[in-house]
Amino acid sequence: MSDKIRIGVIGYGYWGPNIVRNFSSIDSAKVIRVAVSGESALNRVRKDYPQIEATSDLNDILCAKDLDAVAIVTPVSTHFELAKKALMNGKHVFVEKPFTRSIAQAEELIELAEKKHLKIMVDHTFIFTSTVRKIKQLIDEDVLGAIYYYDSIRVNLGLFQNDVNVIWDLAPHDFSIMDFLIKERPVAVQASGKAHVNGKENIAFVTAHFSSNVIGHFNVNWLSPVKVRLTMLGGEKKMLVWNDAVADEKLRVYDKGINGNHHEGTDDHELRVSYRSGDMWAPKIKHTEALQLEADYFASCILGDKTPVNDGHAGLRIIKMLEACDQSLKNQGGLVYL
Amino acid sequence: MSDKIRIGVIGYGYWGPNIVRNFSSIDSAKVIRVAVSGESALNRVRKDYPQIEATSDLNDILCAKDLDAVAIVTPVSTHFELAKKALMNGKHVFVEKPFTRSIAQAEELIELAEKKHLKIMVDHTFIFTSTVRKIKQLIDEDVLGAIYYYDSIRVNLGLFQNDVNVIWDLAPHDFSIMDFLIKERPVAVQASGKAHVNGKENIAFVTAHFSSNVIGHFNVNWLSPVKVRLTMLGGEKKMLVWNDAVADEKLRVYDKGINGNHHEGTDDHELRVSYRSGDMWAPKIKHTEALQLEADYFASCILGDKTPVNDGHAGLRIIKMLEACDQSLKNQGGLVYL
Amino acid sequence: MSDKIRIGVIGYGYWGPNIVRNFSSIDSAKVIRVAVSGESALNRVRKDYPQIEATSDLNDILCAKDLDAVAIVTPVSTHFELAKKALMNGKHVFVEKPFTRSIAQAEELIELAEKKHLKIMVDHTFIFTSTVRKIKQLIDEDVLGAIYYYDSIRVNLGLFQNDVNVIWDLAPHDFSIMDFLIKERPVAVQASGKAHVNGKENIAFVTAHFSSNVIGHFNVNWLSPVKVRLTMLGGEKKMLVWNDAVADEKLRVYDKGINGNHHEGTDDHELRVSYRSGDMWAPKIKHTEALQLEADYFASCILGDKTPVNDGHAGLRIIKMLEACDQSLKNQGGLVYL
Amino acid sequence: MSDKIRIGVIGYGYWGPNIVRNFSSIDSAKVIRVAVSGESALNRVRKDYPQIEATSDLNDILCAKDLDAVAIVTPVSTHFELAKKALMNGKHVFVEKPFTRSIAQAEELIELAEKKHLKIMVDHTFIFTSTVRKIKQLIDEDVLGAIYYYDSIRVNLGLFQNDVNVIWDLAPHDFSIMDFLIKERPVAVQASGKAHVNGKENIAFVTAHFSSNVIGHFNVNWLSPVKVRLTMLGGEKKMLVWNDAVADEKLRVYDKGINGNHHEGTDDHELRVSYRSGDMWAPKIKHTEALQLEADYFASCILGDKTPVNDGHAGLRIIKMLEACDQSLKNQGGLVYL
Repeated sequence: MSDKIRIGVIGYGYWGPNIVRNFSSIDSAKVIRVAVSGESALNRVRKDYPQIEATSDLNDILCAKDLDAVAIVTPVSTHFELAKKALMNGKHVFVEKPFTRSIAQAEELIELAEKKHLKIMVDHTFIFTSTVRKIKQLIDEDVLGAIYYYDSIRVNLGLFQNDVNVIWDLAPHDFSIMDFLIKERPVAVQASGKAHVNGKENIAFVTAHFSSNVIGHFNVNWLSPVKVRLTMLGGEKKMLVWNDAVADEKLRVYDKGINGNHHEGTDDHELRVSYRSGDMWAPKIKHTEALQLEADYFASCILGDKTPVNDGHAGLRIIKMLEACDQSLKNQGGLVYL
Repeated sequence: MSDKIRIGVIGYGYWGPNIVRNFSSIDSAKVIRVAVSGESALNRVRKDYPQIEATSDLNDILCAKDLDAVAIVTPVSTHFELAKKALMNGKHVFVEKPFTRSIAQAEELIELAEKKHLKIMVDHTFIFTSTVRKIKQLIDEDVLGAIYYYDSIRVNLGLFQNDVNVIWDLAPHDFSIMDFLIKERPVAVQASGKAHVNGKENIAFVTAHFSSNVIGHFNVNWLSPVKVRLTMLGGEKKMLVWNDAVADEKLRVYDKGINGNHHEGTDDHELRVSYRSGDMWAPKIKHTEALQLEADYFASCILGDKTPVNDGHAGLRIIKMLEACDQSLKNQGGLVYL
Repeated sequence: MSDKIRIGVIGYGYWGPNIVRNFSSIDSAKVIRVAVSGESALNRVRKDYPQIEATSDLNDILCAKDLDAVAIVTPVSTHFELAKKALMNGKHVFVEKPFTRSIAQAEELIELAEKKHLKIMVDHTFIFTSTVRKIKQLIDEDVLGAIYYYDSIRVNLGLFQNDVNVIWDLAPHDFSIMDFLIKERPVAVQASGKAHVNGKENIAFVTAHFSSNVIGHFNVNWLSPVKVRLTMLGGEKKMLVWNDAVADEKLRVYDKGINGNHHEGTDDHELRVSYRSGDMWAPKIKHTEALQLEADYFASCILGDKTPVNDGHAGLRIIKMLEACDQSLKNQGGLVYL
Repeated sequence: MSDKIRIGVIGYGYWGPNIVRNFSSIDSAKVIRVAVSGESALNRVRKDYPQIEATSDLNDILCAKDLDAVAIVTPVSTHFELAKKALMNGKHVFVEKPFTRSIAQAEELIELAEKKHLKIMVDHTFIFTSTVRKIKQLIDEDVLGAIYYYDSIRVNLGLFQNDVNVIWDLAPHDFSIMDFLIKERPVAVQASGKAHVNGKENIAFVTAHFSSNVIGHFNVNWLSPVKVRLTMLGGEKKMLVWNDAVADEKLRVYDKGINGNHHEGTDDHELRVSYRSGDMWAPKIKHTEALQLEADYFASCILGDKTPVNDGHAGLRIIKMLEACDQSLKNQGGLVYL
């Protein structure tokens, strides 16, 4: 293997150009070839990157001798076949979220990769953002105290997906962030939703249950008039609000909560809980491109033979929750144990 | 009966002063007496309203000869006994939300009032706000088209309630607004939540299912570091966002949605749905005090012998949904039919 | 003198009810009488405060034997005559900002009060807010470092004043806050503006020059479609933004600035100044009503024979700057030395 | 001349990459060569655009036979010499704002271009944005009515310029937008400011006077803790707020103002002006890249021999106002007639 990981990219739609740009921008990797279908897509690749080969034949990527790894940036329904063939041909795999369309597919890929001593990395981009890293640090350093809830709203207008519902499209972000931040794993999930346009749910509400005090909730919607990216994380000691839709001060930490000792009121109907409402603090967050960090991490995991934090097993954990959501949707929102 | 409804008020805690102030400010009613317990509460009433009697004896209100109506502004667990005695003594009843602690109590009060030809009004203040009235108008005039979803976030720090959980405290607002705006009634509800502080849930997520395309969802939380009052209402033709936490332009109507005809993409994984993204419009909302309007409406319903829109039956509909939520909470978030 | 300062209030228009309410709410004072003209205004007083006398005869206030102090809440053009008569009759004076219509008037009142050993307090309410107090503390503790600029935007729709332009109406707030916060006094001011509606300027821009590094600037406007209350204070060490139009986190302190050492770029045209961009911090600000604090302070200054920080001399300093602004407006915005 | 304008670009600092990218993205032009100084800058060009020549010799651009036009993206102090040589060598000139360092330079370049039948376009990018175009339309269609004021705040932290003060850096945006939107020309300007860091003013306030009812004002600052891009435009019929720092709904049109008929109050000190406060409306603004539109317009002006709206004369008008600002700064903010 050369000192640079040689990468072939499959797909150049909405996210593909970001993958190509970031793998091109780092020293540890080099994009050799991009496979897309259709003349206009081919021309788009050629115009953007004259130095990169454009091909419409997937085998130019999947069976190529001159590639170390393959980045799969296609609809989720195609992930399994493409990743399997890439692994079979000895290539490391970087694959878009969600990892696969089913638990069985994910397990098969993991097993195959382990047998072939190859890496799988699932593109859970958010866990490479400076904001999520800062939240992780605040949790690890016990600034927030015991976690009470993870509550996220991720809504906007479009983009409707072809092959999956809004949960499979948007909730993998929240599932993977929650999986990264909170050590404990959910024991059950529930999901309710509605499909207004085609057969797939375009609005959905997911609840994740833990055996401890934690509760998780995601509100995902493709038919919102405004874009909202708001996550609230309540802790025993402090609480935080992460607004990812603003340019600055995305993360705000509140010295707010309730004090342990409280006494009941007499005449009034509110419980006389003693609240603590102190300063708010927005830690400086470095402006880094998460995907660049992740691309570099992928290369370094291959070069250094390390297991990525967002490996196939991480991808599988998210798929398990997504499958459970689908089952809950069919089951009138009933609880589905993981 | 005099030309002014003579009112006695029970309770002068968080909300009571607003009730006294608004019933005092209108020409159609007059607050004669306020009952509270405790010397400091009595003094507070006397200082604020030297011209109003303050008493610590509930019977000075419930059995008084010189009162036409009683406003009950006490914890929900006391509503039934107080309202029953007031009705028994021939008084009309204005009662805080939620109406009662159970369906059975609500039904008994409704029956009693009907027998005695007395009015019950449940204080669903929000349906008297200019904003909700404007939304109602937009729906009635079919500006929004068929409703897709009613999605509300109502979170803040405190006030913890003594006798009920966060659903019984905050969700009555959303249930009553949704009940007022959307003609169709929910067929089932689900609720999940967690109790972090005392035995009562302080964070909860409620989903309301309809037999049509509509879905409702409320996010209520007493442990949020920030106050959020955000309702999104998606319609086939237009969508709106109501931010009640800002001073101006609370209501925004978006000419956004999806067009009927759409075709599938080829290479990309998003469905090629054609979106419509047009102007945003914030209709002028008059600054009125909802509670004053409601107080005047209560008096006029009594004087004109009219049935209030927020009568006992409206209160009962909300109690039914609250009881169903409690049942769902106990039942691991399972669907509870109404 | 009794243990409570007995106060008569003249005027019950926009601000008067706040004056009456706050002087009524404190233990150290008591509002005995309010003078207004017109039957409807008299009735408004009687309805709001049955226990307070309402009169249409100014002499019931100015010449009353049973009053210790007079609060003058009338248009600025009447301040001098009313305050003079009150002082002549041995009453302490609390007067709305701006103090008087001219320097000469202010000086005469100060002299008269000193001769009669009476207090004058000019209602510079903002210096009693928790936010301004917190800023003062940050400056006094050298958190901000040397002040670079005080830049304020105070714009909204209305209320047009009868007798003064927008500078005399809105800029006294900024002049008095700046006077309170920054030890150094301006040496000159400039003002430009335009009168679109009647003869008085409804939009104006004021610059305050200091002999040091400080520069002050106020943007005041009665014809703005939105209400903006935004003050930026730049210091050598830290900078702050005070947004008074929001409910929470009004004050934000930024660990931002430039570092001393910098070197020039080569090809690029920006100076390679090294910036420091750190955390943002919103200190908890107590919710207090400034006017109540000020009312209590007025009473305590009388009872304890102390000179208020916002005495006649403070009022005069602001009048000097307002007169200089008027002169600058007439003089095409030219610099007017103080 | 070929069907594509062949362009050489001088400078590849902060703005240069945007110029190269946009002239590369259009069909009517082609970037042949970029001149920069320094090996690292040369390598940056080569990495970003392998197909474009990179040179450190300015004459490879200025004297090249294979170029139709030159884009000058260097510090303002170099504009004159570079533009002059380009014009002398028969090349059309696209030059960054501000056009030149002095009126005399601008006039010489205009004369030279006219003699040689060449185009000059000054990069007033903002007048090509969809937002400014929409405002222009609202003014031209008399939606706003007679303009009362143009009030802009353009502040942020950095970037300090090497060769000019903050007015020359930031105010050209406002001067050129105002020049584009408002038919009438200012008759005089004033400027005040302060230099806290090096000898150049880093904070400044500019007032533009018109012979009519219009007044213009710009607040520019390199030392603000937050980025603000806020322009308010008051008209007799409607008023608008343009917030360029947000992602959506940048432009808001308010049906607000004052009605002609008003009467004076009696007791109160506010003038009883009757206000009109109606709906707010945010027209849909297309997402277009202004610089791409401008690049294409430059090419079409050359190919079609048209005079650009942002030609040398437009550039000169802005330079005249900038020179007047400098004169006013030296003259204690005194009025400088244009």
